[in-house]
Amino acid sequence: MPRITTPEAEALLDQELTVLDHGFVRLVDYMGGDSSIVQAARVSYGPGTKTVREDRNLINYLMRHRHTTPFEMVELKFHVKLPIFVARQWIRHRTANVNEQSLRYSVMPDEFYVPAPESINFQSRSNRQGRSPEAVPEDVRARVLEILKGATEASYPQYQELLEAGIARELARISLPVSAYTEWYWKIDLYNLFHFLSLRCDPHAQYEIRQYAEAVGRCTQAVAPFAYAAFVEYQLEAASLSKHERLIVAKLIHGTPAAWSDFAYFGEPVEFGEDGVSKILQSRRRELADKIGVSIPVESEALAT
Amino acid sequence: MPRITTPEAEALLDQELTVLDHGFVRLVDYMGGDSSIVQAARVSYGPGTKTVREDRNLINYLMRHRHTTPFEMVELKFHVKLPIFVARQWIRHRTANVNEQSLRYSVMPDEFYVPAPESINFQSRSNRQGRSPEAVPEDVRARVLEILKGATEASYPQYQELLEAGIARELARISLPVSAYTEWYWKIDLYNLFHFLSLRCDPHAQYEIRQYAEAVGRCTQAVAPFAYAAFVEYQLEAASLSKHERLIVAKLIHGTPAAWSDFAYFGEPVEFGEDGVSKILQSRRRELADKIGVSIPVESEALAT
Amino acid sequence: MPRITTPEAEALLDQELTVLDHGFVRLVDYMGGDSSIVQAARVSYGPGTKTVREDRNLINYLMRHRHTTPFEMVELKFHVKLPIFVARQWIRHRTANVNEQSLRYSVMPDEFYVPAPESINFQSRSNRQGRSPEAVPEDVRARVLEILKGATEASYPQYQELLEAGIARELARISLPVSAYTEWYWKIDLYNLFHFLSLRCDPHAQYEIRQYAEAVGRCTQAVAPFAYAAFVEYQLEAASLSKHERLIVAKLIHGTPAAWSDFAYFGEPVEFGEDGVSKILQSRRRELADKIGVSIPVESEALAT
Amino acid sequence: MPRITTPEAEALLDQELTVLDHGFVRLVDYMGGDSSIVQAARVSYGPGTKTVREDRNLINYLMRHRHTTPFEMVELKFHVKLPIFVARQWIRHRTANVNEQSLRYSVMPDEFYVPAPESINFQSRSNRQGRSPEAVPEDVRARVLEILKGATEASYPQYQELLEAGIARELARISLPVSAYTEWYWKIDLYNLFHFLSLRCDPHAQYEIRQYAEAVGRCTQAVAPFAYAAFVEYQLEAASLSKHERLIVAKLIHGTPAAWSDFAYFGEPVEFGEDGVSKILQSRRRELADKIGVSIPVESEALAT
Repeated sequence: MPRITTPEAEALLDQELTVLDHGFVRLVDYMGGDSSIVQAARVSYGPGTKTVREDRNLINYLMRHRHTTPFEMVELKFHVKLPIFVARQWIRHRTANVNEQSLRYSVMPDEFYVPAPESINFQSRSNRQGRSPEAVPEDVRARVLEILKGATEASYPQYQELLEAGIARELARISLPVSAYTEWYWKIDLYNLFHFLSLRCDPHAQYEIRQYAEAVGRCTQAVAPFAYAAFVEYQLEAASLSKHERLIVAKLIHGTPAAWSDFAYFGEPVEFGEDGVSKILQSRRRELADKIGVSIPVESEALAT
Repeated sequence: MPRITTPEAEALLDQELTVLDHGFVRLVDYMGGDSSIVQAARVSYGPGTKTVREDRNLINYLMRHRHTTPFEMVELKFHVKLPIFVARQWIRHRTANVNEQSLRYSVMPDEFYVPAPESINFQSRSNRQGRSPEAVPEDVRARVLEILKGATEASYPQYQELLEAGIARELARISLPVSAYTEWYWKIDLYNLFHFLSLRCDPHAQYEIRQYAEAVGRCTQAVAPFAYAAFVEYQLEAASLSKHERLIVAKLIHGTPAAWSDFAYFGEPVEFGEDGVSKILQSRRRELADKIGVSIPVESEALAT
Repeated sequence: MPRITTPEAEALLDQELTVLDHGFVRLVDYMGGDSSIVQAARVSYGPGTKTVREDRNLINYLMRHRHTTPFEMVELKFHVKLPIFVARQWIRHRTANVNEQSLRYSVMPDEFYVPAPESINFQSRSNRQGRSPEAVPEDVRARVLEILKGATEASYPQYQELLEAGIARELARISLPVSAYTEWYWKIDLYNLFHFLSLRCDPHAQYEIRQYAEAVGRCTQAVAPFAYAAFVEYQLEAASLSKHERLIVAKLIHGTPAAWSDFAYFGEPVEFGEDGVSKILQSRRRELADKIGVSIPVESEALAT
Repeated sequence: MPRITTPEAEALLDQELTVLDHGFVRLVDYMGGDSSIVQAARVSYGPGTKTVREDRNLINYLMRHRHTTPFEMVELKFHVKLPIFVARQWIRHRTANVNEQSLRYSVMPDEFYVPAPESINFQSRSNRQGRSPEAVPEDVRARVLEILKGATEASYPQYQELLEAGIARELARISLPVSAYTEWYWKIDLYNLFHFLSLRCDPHAQYEIRQYAEAVGRCTQAVAPFAYAAFVEYQLEAASLSKHERLIVAKLIHGTPAAWSDFAYFGEPVEFGEDGVSKILQSRRRELADKIGVSIPVESEALAT
């Protein structure tokens, strides 16, 4: 049997997909694809019919019913160049194999991440971990860039001075900033890769790692297009309704508006503001509306206190 | 700081919760509880307010937003006695520590699982892996029990004969049936335990392992009651809507009935029966109805072919 | 860059290597080889010279110094048919991906492991988990075979009867013996594969799983011959000397015989027999002699009590 | 059964063991100890005798024979404050649970690692990843400290300026150096902890992480003193002899000097210098001598070319 390949993946192999200012994602190798998922599933569930359409349906079935092990039968390997602070988020995905450049052995080149002006944002007010969409005035941006560039421009000559003085590399590197670029080989199976993508393509992920996740996603789609489509349908763009949210949705489908109290589960603090509605309940309602993409009618907009 | 305990968990410690005919689940030890989840989260997200209600809300927040690592800070250890065929399903959960009785070292006692008469079921017709709810006639049941009991009653004396002849234990055991009981210590963190429970308390899990999962769940709830409640709300009794299902639900909330074509994604085979409706589309509709707990109206019950 | 392959591995691809009476190991796919280990190491340790001899030396260096992550960059996938009792030992290696045939979905064929007459052995007297090399008399063997064959010959028709009666497959299979054959796809990286081989090619592993480990080892050697040779040199046929054993070896190299007390560490029970020498100390001495392959001289053969 | 504790571990609980200039290791919680290893082993290998001395022997037996799963039944949890560059080495141990402070959520305090003057070393000449024991002249040290302190003293006010300007925390932190301190909760089982210690207490590990490993080791010894002693004997201070080294040691014990060719395995490049001896062979001989702690006699000091 010839090795399983796709023309799309073969075309991407060894291409550096540029990410941020000096980074890249490069698909180095891959093992298997849609048909190896099907092949593995047939061992578990017995032989079956063999058309492409049936393969696609089987892949959808597996994804829909959380039969995840067949997806583990596909493996992808990437070469990535990325800032250290991105690497620190990425490495939290433990079910992967990693070989990172070691600054104990080798000398770092003079490359640091400096954000593009349009990626400089204020702290979000609504989200403790995110960036605000609000525009940052020209002069503030300029000052930010001055600081970030200045820090790295000062840092590298000092690193070099320490190396030239013969100081141990493992020590000389300790004042390098986390915007410095590092490189690694990263190898992971498709199931765990989907988990990585579902967390790192999410709007709550930091902008910089999202750029990498998108490049990784592009390679993934090339390697296993049906599985990727199933991932988008059943994970990436799916929405999880909590038990209470299910009850609210059922009401709404029956044409009954929700009551504020439907949102108040778990004894969460329901302290009512001037308008007679709790901020927490409003936030729960907004979350559900965002998930489904409709506004959620509530019986009476203001809850009598 | 004194060790984190709950009275409920302390009361359960070392109790054998009976499962099936000869099995049990016994909570042997645990480390941490709801407050260690909060403690770990505070390291990540900074210190916060300190009431019990706020702890509970933080736990809900973590679960809702898939911040899973704080749940890994709680560890539970169980002693379980279970049939081999259940052990074979259970062991597929790899992120756990296991010490199983070895029949290379020790001699198996004469205990085999024989289902209670009411747990003897026909193969499901709608589900390739399940049991039918349909009642099994008395005489069929009796014959099934005769076979199952007979097999184990024949098996044990032969095993003993081999051992008495001095045959290596590792060889003598090979004709023992998978209904034989084994024992193990099983240790797992709370995050991975929730994953185990979400798969093994599911109605699609085999009846026998579900009985174990329920006993394990009872212990888990005793150790970390707020986290367990959040798990039930956001995982166990939650429903995942695929991208297309979200669109259908949005329509329904707006009072617009769904069209059959809304269910036909991914180029799935839409072959229409005599009634002008595809079986696949009907099945997709039923799935969505089951998730939400309402019937799903469709524009025209029969799709014009 | 073309895919990394070896002619030896390509020749093995999709061949069923027969194991035991009905089993096999089949190399289904592989990703990478010796040169991908080198490629990954160069990212960590910087670029280097490029001859084949230097590649081999780098691989040896990595293995000798426990730089294990480059070996994780190679992945192998196998299709294996094996008795359930072997599968139960095998599955304990958690860092692998597995898709096993499910008897909830599919019907088991009528194949059971029956040992070859020469593989029927008595329980070892010196080793609680092993088989004795002592020959088993013809008539005992015949009786063992009668029992083992009889058990499986009785079992399969009963299984079929239950299936024909319409009983759920997941229930009908519970009286099948652990000698029944199952199948799976098994995928693992080279580092964890070496760990598997070091435990399962060991003489203490059960005879049956050792046959599988040897077939897996043959495929591994074909995929990454230099790495496999390094594994044999530095792991499989290496010997670990404990702290005390190192001291004893140092003495012996200096021409000083060991004293019995050199073997008595950790306050182990040193109870002397009639000959004035403790069994425990003799066993420690024999272990060291076995590791190095020489007899270990002791100052005075009998220790004055 | 009361919880398994040791007075030594109870005394350490919640104590901050100071590491480096601002760091610490704090044992937060632990589950089990020596007796839970024994308890789990008894499930696998059957019940046994019950004295403390026998428990100790069983633990030694398990360690000696690589029966590792019982050690996984003990769990320890630490709170650690450590520089980012140490955290990056530490996190490579994947089989652990981690909750790290997030600089997307919280603001970093003004604390950076600056090495003590005596920890400033030149790059090792013999070892590509280490520090030289050679003394660094006073003035060089002073300049190194000036650079390292200067970098962090400049960095923090800039970080603060960015935060005060309202820039997103996740962006403001990117020019902080890897000498900045972070904190995490880290939870791991005893088997994987021993693996961590064996790599990170090793003289080849970077000085800074070794300080942490020693503090972690001190806590580990308090929790499971017998297991820790077995770890020291059979892992930390053990030596692994390669296949060829075993043959050389056997020769030496028989009083036969080794030949240079005994060291030349694997077709390694044996290029002879002026003195007629290959550097590689000399290095292999030195390695073996270091392992055993004796000088290794070779038949003729200079090999005829």
